[in-house]
Amino acid sequence: MALTPDQQAEVDALRAEQHETRRTTVPELEEVLYEAIPVPDHGFVRVIDYMGDDAAIVQAARVSYGRGTKRTRDDAGLINYLMRNSHTSPFEMCEIKLHVKLPIFVARQWVRHRTASLNEYSARYSVLDSEFYIPDADKLAAQSTANRQGRDEVLSVAAGEKVRDLLRSDAEQAFAHYHDMLNEGTGGQPADAGRQGLARELARIGLPVSTYTQWYWKVNLHNLLHFLGLRADAHAQWEIRAYANVILDIVKRWAPLTHAAFMNYQVGGARLTPEGLAIVRKLIKSETVDESAIQMSPREWRELQAILGLS
Amino acid sequence: MALTPDQQAEVDALRAEQHETRRTTVPELEEVLYEAIPVPDHGFVRVIDYMGDDAAIVQAARVSYGRGTKRTRDDAGLINYLMRNSHTSPFEMCEIKLHVKLPIFVARQWVRHRTASLNEYSARYSVLDSEFYIPDADKLAAQSTANRQGRDEVLSVAAGEKVRDLLRSDAEQAFAHYHDMLNEGTGGQPADAGRQGLARELARIGLPVSTYTQWYWKVNLHNLLHFLGLRADAHAQWEIRAYANVILDIVKRWAPLTHAAFMNYQVGGARLTPEGLAIVRKLIKSETVDESAIQMSPREWRELQAILGLS
Amino acid sequence: MALTPDQQAEVDALRAEQHETRRTTVPELEEVLYEAIPVPDHGFVRVIDYMGDDAAIVQAARVSYGRGTKRTRDDAGLINYLMRNSHTSPFEMCEIKLHVKLPIFVARQWVRHRTASLNEYSARYSVLDSEFYIPDADKLAAQSTANRQGRDEVLSVAAGEKVRDLLRSDAEQAFAHYHDMLNEGTGGQPADAGRQGLARELARIGLPVSTYTQWYWKVNLHNLLHFLGLRADAHAQWEIRAYANVILDIVKRWAPLTHAAFMNYQVGGARLTPEGLAIVRKLIKSETVDESAIQMSPREWRELQAILGLS
Amino acid sequence: MALTPDQQAEVDALRAEQHETRRTTVPELEEVLYEAIPVPDHGFVRVIDYMGDDAAIVQAARVSYGRGTKRTRDDAGLINYLMRNSHTSPFEMCEIKLHVKLPIFVARQWVRHRTASLNEYSARYSVLDSEFYIPDADKLAAQSTANRQGRDEVLSVAAGEKVRDLLRSDAEQAFAHYHDMLNEGTGGQPADAGRQGLARELARIGLPVSTYTQWYWKVNLHNLLHFLGLRADAHAQWEIRAYANVILDIVKRWAPLTHAAFMNYQVGGARLTPEGLAIVRKLIKSETVDESAIQMSPREWRELQAILGLS
Repeated sequence: MALTPDQQAEVDALRAEQHETRRTTVPELEEVLYEAIPVPDHGFVRVIDYMGDDAAIVQAARVSYGRGTKRTRDDAGLINYLMRNSHTSPFEMCEIKLHVKLPIFVARQWVRHRTASLNEYSARYSVLDSEFYIPDADKLAAQSTANRQGRDEVLSVAAGEKVRDLLRSDAEQAFAHYHDMLNEGTGGQPADAGRQGLARELARIGLPVSTYTQWYWKVNLHNLLHFLGLRADAHAQWEIRAYANVILDIVKRWAPLTHAAFMNYQVGGARLTPEGLAIVRKLIKSETVDESAIQMSPREWRELQAILGLS
Repeated sequence: MALTPDQQAEVDALRAEQHETRRTTVPELEEVLYEAIPVPDHGFVRVIDYMGDDAAIVQAARVSYGRGTKRTRDDAGLINYLMRNSHTSPFEMCEIKLHVKLPIFVARQWVRHRTASLNEYSARYSVLDSEFYIPDADKLAAQSTANRQGRDEVLSVAAGEKVRDLLRSDAEQAFAHYHDMLNEGTGGQPADAGRQGLARELARIGLPVSTYTQWYWKVNLHNLLHFLGLRADAHAQWEIRAYANVILDIVKRWAPLTHAAFMNYQVGGARLTPEGLAIVRKLIKSETVDESAIQMSPREWRELQAILGLS
Repeated sequence: MALTPDQQAEVDALRAEQHETRRTTVPELEEVLYEAIPVPDHGFVRVIDYMGDDAAIVQAARVSYGRGTKRTRDDAGLINYLMRNSHTSPFEMCEIKLHVKLPIFVARQWVRHRTASLNEYSARYSVLDSEFYIPDADKLAAQSTANRQGRDEVLSVAAGEKVRDLLRSDAEQAFAHYHDMLNEGTGGQPADAGRQGLARELARIGLPVSTYTQWYWKVNLHNLLHFLGLRADAHAQWEIRAYANVILDIVKRWAPLTHAAFMNYQVGGARLTPEGLAIVRKLIKSETVDESAIQMSPREWRELQAILGLS
Repeated sequence: MALTPDQQAEVDALRAEQHETRRTTVPELEEVLYEAIPVPDHGFVRVIDYMGDDAAIVQAARVSYGRGTKRTRDDAGLINYLMRNSHTSPFEMCEIKLHVKLPIFVARQWVRHRTASLNEYSARYSVLDSEFYIPDADKLAAQSTANRQGRDEVLSVAAGEKVRDLLRSDAEQAFAHYHDMLNEGTGGQPADAGRQGLARELARIGLPVSTYTQWYWKVNLHNLLHFLGLRADAHAQWEIRAYANVILDIVKRWAPLTHAAFMNYQVGGARLTPEGLAIVRKLIKSETVDESAIQMSPREWRELQAILGLS
């Protein structure tokens, strides 16, 4: 389980509160506020706070004294225009704060996105919970031969079980040794009174990168979309994509017009180079494309054919 | 007046709204939400939205599932500790969005602070209001002779009036010519039907840097305090300090424990160098300080004496 | 002239120096180092320093101990791959430092790009030169009627001359009053000994936004390309585009493979939405496109037709 | 050893090159360029490139056409002034690029500094070397009882050896299993032809956070000093301090005036609060300090007494 009963009680207490505010609110997002949305296998994403909505983007783009427009249709038109023309600053006017529990190797990819605020649970200060990520059998894929940075077909059942056993037993052993080195025991008494415990900041260095950590992460909507564009993409490792997809759903609740514009202008479709565009123009006029004269790389040419439905 | 009646009506409409939220709220800040707090002579600061409060800083520092602590005294202790030891990341967990009207020369100092989000009224897209900043007579000071970047005593009444007249008449003339070059007239009809108007992006280049602009500015609490530390300081130009002081009052409403810690550990007091500290130790022991052996610059030595109440 | 004889002598002295270094050097860029490349009408761009080249991008992408590859063809392939797939971090490994002289209204657009380092000449500390930007006659265009943020056809000769006269005489008058208020005279003696001069930080507030300022600006190659993508674009104001085009030429000297990849994958070509792509596929198969069923806006549809050479 | 013979040969080849440049050079830094400066126990720091020096800071602060001043004494005075008054932007005008090999748990602390550019060796793309950090016996300290985030006295020899054995055997086992799961063998042939290897991005999740990684890290001097202020501090974990101290020496070679100003105004000495300053004034006048009226926390009071040499 992602949350202990005590943690769940704290979450429930927060969810039971209601306050009055003059600020913009988003009822669809309030619905899930504070809830731990699960991510395999022990992770979660919780929305802790937010600022702004689709209308706040319009309001800032217009530098208006009131709410911006009242008509959703006008808002959608302006948001589409901003997204399409890379007028990104109004999207920075919305902000969200998440509480995330995630394995260290995912956390290491996540922090490559620098334009966000972060407070992480400290393993120098506190003892880590004995929780680590083990991939489900259907996620245990072989190394891709086509793409050095990807996965291919799933391992056989037997091979998968062997991998899971190795990962689990190594992690359990590392945690057992972690507690042994710490020698903290319970109730303030060391487990073994005859010896000193190792400092927490050192005892943790043998733990695997599959160990769970957690953090508060706060980011504006523009930078969040940039993160999602890269991390919900098929080239991202499956484990971080699982988080990105949960957050995409959160964005859809929070700012549905922006979410739609993002999917249309940034995620979907394709970018053509000048040469690609020239080829498309020929194809539309049913002119012949001389393949021997193509300058782009074979890989780009294959991808272009796939995009155009030619192969 | 800072706001037109129409603008004031828009603000009043926003202030009349009340919404339900599960999020953290700060009643003291809600009180002034959307209000235009005046800054001389035509400027204002409006709080448009905020995220978090003192307790949210504690909550993030502890990466907690619930509110953090409930006891104000514990929160104050932790916030003091964080501020004192430059643990700045929890202060990034609070965010505020302001609507500011300010002269261009102030805006140019303001944007040197890069870690904020900004949407400015566009003089390429829209026609600027004919508003410009004229210093009050008691702000018209002579160039400092001691500090190349400062002001000294106030000009005489006659000299001040002459300056104000020059600034005002030049600005009025520039605005008259601006409208003449634009030739936009009213109701979609050019003022002078016989000629084309100049593009807005060009017509504005003759306007003075005292012209008012406005923007939405969004920043986290850590970066806001850094801004205030520099811009509410006595070395900042008076005109931007007037804005910084208004915002300091807003911070006091929003996060009073953080405001107090900031004033105590960052703004007040003084930093001593190793040599300065060695001198202090000697003075405490009533030992003689050999002035001829002092390594610091004469200016630093004067300042140290002032800090220690020696001069 | 952009430079005074004294300034030119300082530049010449720098250009005459030669040092030994173990670092990567770019002879094509060294050729223009320190030179003031002119930008209309009194502006310039000077390259002051640089770090890295195309090979340094490859070296960082491979985290290699030596130079990366030695073969230009391999470097080009990797750089194209990185640019095409938004692997932007290796481009941050190159850095350039420019000295730029530019009008304040251009400077205000420029600083919207926050991920750069900046030191600007201080009008609080020093007296500004009496230099301001006046557009050439062929740049004095009417307000666009199609695009609220653009220019249309050029004004008539007579109308243009009138605009130039107005801008020039207002600016000259503002500078005359500036010096009058400063009352600094020459050689440390006030012009008018009978009265105090106004502080510099105040006297400058009546100067127009066409006044020239200057700064040192330092930026990495990734952020520079982002700047150029927006500011060399046809939607940018002509005056900042003039600077962006000069800098594009500098990038071509400095990192020609990156420049080519940027022009191919980021600047040239076009992005298609999912709907646009579906239409293209139909057109290639010579299927009919039902215009009444098109969801995109009329403007997007016109632009798509133009991109595909249909209109 | 930190470098293999092949890697050392690549480094030697780079060090043997000499190029001509018009740019600023720093002979003291060129001396160590590309060299792997060791950090315990398998880590290193290599300077790959740099831009600017002390004089470049002066040049940028003055926005000058030539070198800035020629006299070291004037440069020192200005640099001290800038450092003392938090005029930080000129220090951003110098840039350095490092190649660092470091354990993952150190890398995780390092990346909390966001204002830098980074390219890390990818364990999704490549197989990791079997190298991990084991603390020397004299670094194996017990958990501090006074400070939850620190170390205390060193463990006994026997206890230390037991810890080292546990960490080493767990890491060796994790690496053995890593290679077993990868099943990559040598020369393109799988070790066990009868089964598929697991994808690299998954096989690595069982490796400990003591595993070495490496990266190119590029940062400006201002942000580097901020990093060093926090990471060379006694409160930082010893393992990252070892890197920070090596880099401090590099800064001393590169920009000695800035290094001296940093040590004097930022690292050494102490900051006093308003209350602390009031107490100092009393002590200097030999007035009595009423301890019962002291508002600061007991910890702050102890620290103040220590700073003033009273305890």
